[in-house]
Amino acid sequence: MAKLMECVPNISEGRNAEIVEACVNEVRNISGVKLVDYSSDPDHNRSVITFVGTSEPVKEAAFALTKKAQELIDLTKHSGTHKRMGAVDVIPFIPLGETTMDECKKASEELAERIGNELDIPVYLYANSSKRKHCKKLPTIRKGEFEKFEEKIKLDKWKPDFGPCKKHCTFGCVAIGAREFLVAFNVYLNTSDVKVADTIAKSLRESGGGHMHLQAMGMYIDEKAMVQVSMNILNFKKLPLYRLVEMIRTEARRWGYEIRETELIGLIPLQAVLNSLAYYIQLPSLSTSQIVEMKIQED
Amino acid sequence: MAKLMECVPNISEGRNAEIVEACVNEVRNISGVKLVDYSSDPDHNRSVITFVGTSEPVKEAAFALTKKAQELIDLTKHSGTHKRMGAVDVIPFIPLGETTMDECKKASEELAERIGNELDIPVYLYANSSKRKHCKKLPTIRKGEFEKFEEKIKLDKWKPDFGPCKKHCTFGCVAIGAREFLVAFNVYLNTSDVKVADTIAKSLRESGGGHMHLQAMGMYIDEKAMVQVSMNILNFKKLPLYRLVEMIRTEARRWGYEIRETELIGLIPLQAVLNSLAYYIQLPSLSTSQIVEMKIQED
Repeated sequence: MAKLMECVPNISEGRNAEIVEACVNEVRNISGVKLVDYSSDPDHNRSVITFVGTSEPVKEAAFALTKKAQELIDLTKHSGTHKRMGAVDVIPFIPLGETTMDECKKASEELAERIGNELDIPVYLYANSSKRKHCKKLPTIRKGEFEKFEEKIKLDKWKPDFGPCKKHCTFGCVAIGAREFLVAFNVYLNTSDVKVADTIAKSLRESGGGHMHLQAMGMYIDEKAMVQVSMNILNFKKLPLYRLVEMIRTEARRWGYEIRETELIGLIPLQAVLNSLAYYIQLPSLSTSQIVEMKIQED
Repeated sequence: MAKLMECVPNISEGRNAEIVEACVNEVRNISGVKLVDYSSDPDHNRSVITFVGTSEPVKEAAFALTKKAQELIDLTKHSGTHKRMGAVDVIPFIPLGETTMDECKKASEELAERIGNELDIPVYLYANSSKRKHCKKLPTIRKGEFEKFEEKIKLDKWKPDFGPCKKHCTFGCVAIGAREFLVAFNVYLNTSDVKVADTIAKSLRESGGGHMHLQAMGMYIDEKAMVQVSMNILNFKKLPLYRLVEMIRTEARRWGYEIRETELIGLIPLQAVLNSLAYYIQLPSLSTSQIVEMKIQED
């Protein structure tokens, strides 16, 4: 099976469609890369571009897009509600199928080195690619945003991993790294009492001392007249879907409530689906190579 | 998403590797078709060839294979433990992904007509493609085998759907039709009492008055020192995996036993996996277009 990875650059432009298209076209022009999705948020003034392929063409497309963004986006003139430190703010690499995290780390480092050397942009390795503990999380690196990097980058602690020790005057700097696929998943309970969803969210999420890799909050959803535990699963391998669902089911029963239905936002990796079904039907394992439709993708 | 179908011709040759390779090569030579698997059974003297693609190349490959088999296989000299009526005995078409049964029926009829006209072989439409109630099941059509078709084909009831009303002297005749993907699935119970597995199998299978589309038998598996309910699911849309597992779980509890583990033999369609996971985690629906890896296959 081809070693596929997903790459999801975030660029700091969400209002000028011409600029966004020009950046996206750089991805379209690389053969061996499949543009999966792109969308812009004018309030955030930011666009998210998603493409998939093997390591070489993916790196090529990410490089071409970054070069184009450097040409067209000037962060000294940028305003928007989303925090940002670069014209391309972050470039995550995500393993798909049988691709390993190490393969994505390697690709992210190679791209980081090339962008540092050829485009003269400071690059921070983040997430699983990070070499320094304090550089694991993007918000920590990005603190102070574009405007404060003039000074921040001079500190030893914030020396970039690649490129010059000097903020690029219009581009800023960029974070590049490998991370797991993020699954956005919501669970509805058969109650309109938001305190229930909120209590469950707080007790299960990482920041509340619950399960690692889980972000969660309770919300009341008007159109359904039900509450929702709204979640991001940051590592579906360490926090499988079945465990999350069964943990919420167990917690809800404290008040006599049950799960009414669930909701998946966006996409999910095949392996996440297979692992959770295997749990429920007690298959010791179920791999992507047992799925008929995946046979077509084999080399 | 490309409209993919699987085609699984069974040929009446499982001993002469040269002849099998010659037939398989006809499939390899058609572009747009992916050869997924082929295997021969010398006792049966029969080979099963599996390939996947869209309607046009799949029909082309099945036609080329049939023509080659007509050239190389002489049923007057065939012996083996598996029942057979033709050099190519049966050509099933199976919908994959979002492909409908109707699309597979259409493909099977077009191939049947072409084989009847161009190769002068009598063709029976069977399974979902059958126009006549008594031609639904392959064993009914095949009864009497190659040797008895000289006479059988002259009966009004056994007039072929396409081609001449006369058995081809060396090829015999062939059944072509659309059917669902067959899932081979076994459930182990935490007991060595084969009567338990046997009683469950008999009460759940179609022939025992249980669930339609289910073949099942109880077996003792020596290497595991456990009994197994061994099953074929003939229609995974009408008999989803989760319902089968939960039915067996419920029956086993009559004697205080539980499912120890399950086993999937061969491949399974993605939709079967998605539907059953959706049940357990209470997603109203989960479609192939929500799976990241399937995005790569989109047009």
